[in-house]
Amino acid sequence: MTLKSLMDNMLPAIETELQTAVTLLDEPYNRSFREMLTYHMGWSGEGANPEATGKRIRPLLMLLTCAACGAEWQRALPAAACIELIHNFSLAHDDIQDGSELRRGRLTVWKKWGMAQAINVGDALFILAHLVLLKTKATYLPELILEIGGIVDQACLALSTGQFLDISYEKRTDLTIDDYWRMVSGKTATLLSASTQVGALIGGADELSKENYKNFGHYLGSAFQVQDDYLGIWGNSALTGKSTESDLVAGKKTLPVLFGLAKNGLFAHRWAEGPIQAIEAGPLSEQLAGEGVKLLTQETADQMTDMAMLSLRAANPQGDPGNALFELANLLLTRRA
Amino acid sequence: MTLKSLMDNMLPAIETELQTAVTLLDEPYNRSFREMLTYHMGWSGEGANPEATGKRIRPLLMLLTCAACGAEWQRALPAAACIELIHNFSLAHDDIQDGSELRRGRLTVWKKWGMAQAINVGDALFILAHLVLLKTKATYLPELILEIGGIVDQACLALSTGQFLDISYEKRTDLTIDDYWRMVSGKTATLLSASTQVGALIGGADELSKENYKNFGHYLGSAFQVQDDYLGIWGNSALTGKSTESDLVAGKKTLPVLFGLAKNGLFAHRWAEGPIQAIEAGPLSEQLAGEGVKLLTQETADQMTDMAMLSLRAANPQGDPGNALFELANLLLTRRA
Repeated sequence: MTLKSLMDNMLPAIETELQTAVTLLDEPYNRSFREMLTYHMGWSGEGANPEATGKRIRPLLMLLTCAACGAEWQRALPAAACIELIHNFSLAHDDIQDGSELRRGRLTVWKKWGMAQAINVGDALFILAHLVLLKTKATYLPELILEIGGIVDQACLALSTGQFLDISYEKRTDLTIDDYWRMVSGKTATLLSASTQVGALIGGADELSKENYKNFGHYLGSAFQVQDDYLGIWGNSALTGKSTESDLVAGKKTLPVLFGLAKNGLFAHRWAEGPIQAIEAGPLSEQLAGEGVKLLTQETADQMTDMAMLSLRAANPQGDPGNALFELANLLLTRRA
Repeated sequence: MTLKSLMDNMLPAIETELQTAVTLLDEPYNRSFREMLTYHMGWSGEGANPEATGKRIRPLLMLLTCAACGAEWQRALPAAACIELIHNFSLAHDDIQDGSELRRGRLTVWKKWGMAQAINVGDALFILAHLVLLKTKATYLPELILEIGGIVDQACLALSTGQFLDISYEKRTDLTIDDYWRMVSGKTATLLSASTQVGALIGGADELSKENYKNFGHYLGSAFQVQDDYLGIWGNSALTGKSTESDLVAGKKTLPVLFGLAKNGLFAHRWAEGPIQAIEAGPLSEQLAGEGVKLLTQETADQMTDMAMLSLRAANPQGDPGNALFELANLLLTRRA
């Protein structure tokens, strides 16, 4: 059974689990509130379709990890729904914080219903994530629920800290590469490592194996983020004429920018002078490449990818789900557009 | 031992428990983030003083209830910190949603650090509330932690639903008294009833007693809110010259307003014509009184107060903490300014 056929079974089960969670808001007077949540989840409203839900990477990683440890993947479904609700809570709040008007081509919740209700939508998703986990008493032992809750809430704290750092970095000019990793670790890597860690925990893995799965998630997230940063400057859409899409124009302090600033060359001097115009994005990305930053970024992404793959191999995932984990990691880490 | 002397012991213990929770954010790079949280809690920054913390009513109710059931109040401290952090999470988000610039005479977090960080501060307080509860494994059995978590998160869902209703009511002209109670139940009563319910649970109360304590919290919150609504129109500060403080001028759909609209008299006709000016607040409050609404509101507050006291008596609270619960309820429900 390949990744594809496992996904064909898992993804509908994840959606069902998620939809059950949202029925906690099923009183008639909550109908509009529930609609905001189901819109955000990609199930209802304008533009609702399977792509609008996002890829459900985190729950998928959790189910595959659980199965690769030799347990039934169905056993991890409630925790998988929990982690995806957490992810969606953070997206709802991120969209407000970043002022993003679109997510996956659809209006964001705050753009559609206003900031006040969007804060509320995020809060409700966060609360539902916890209620879903608490409702697993029939499936999990109390100690297991508490252990999962501890991992998830520690990840949330890291998420919230990462978001704090990200926002505070906007005004800072003294950022180091360490600052970057601290932020990425919270914003991107933590929820992925919580996904694989909880999957291994529910799958009954031993301590060493859990640690390896946790590291796999961490490095997978880190590699993904560095690659995202790379594509944000040297990807196709960043380099086309419409280069408002370039992270350089957006002024984002991504890894290549921090590498470039550390070089203290022409790029750093131009950056210090103020906002980059769209027309400069192409030449400036070449300047950065000339200063060795393109290669350095690619090498960093490769390094993180290697660490992810080494950790996964060390975890020794079993059977078809194990193969599917390698396949999924490869898929996520070889985007080139 | 009176309420006063019990509070003298309990309040510092609550602050210590809360401060311990916030140390989860003690890495140097989180310092500014932690400052935002401690500012919001009333411990640091401009205007920090014992009054800036708020009255800690919810944790106090929980500790007193626990002790009135015959257990040591110290046993309920972690859960008390949890409920107060939840309350503060909701205040941080409410202030953004309502656009409130001041809380207890100090700038609100969003006004001081911007909306994006204030969303984050609320999120972090919510997460810390859960982490505090999860860290009680040494004190509580796993089953108890899960039961407390279930009560707290159900209360949070009601809180979030109540906030959704409150915001959505702003645009509605067809509100009924039922709509009002539904909103108040979520926004005000639920967290108070969760406080007394969890206090009774930790105190080892039987099912009937827990139900009575839960009802006590619920009616206490309801009575408090109706009284707040009353004072918002007929209280001293609402009736002084500076009547921008009147809820009528703010256009709030409080209970007296809904009563007045249901009467469909002169008040209802004036309300339908558009915003009330400050100069009209006095005469219009008299008009409402003339239509019988002042009396009706007072009667409703009295009714809720009676229910609260009946529930508390039925719960049969013991000893000094039991007496202190009556004393606290009386104190909360006899504000007249």
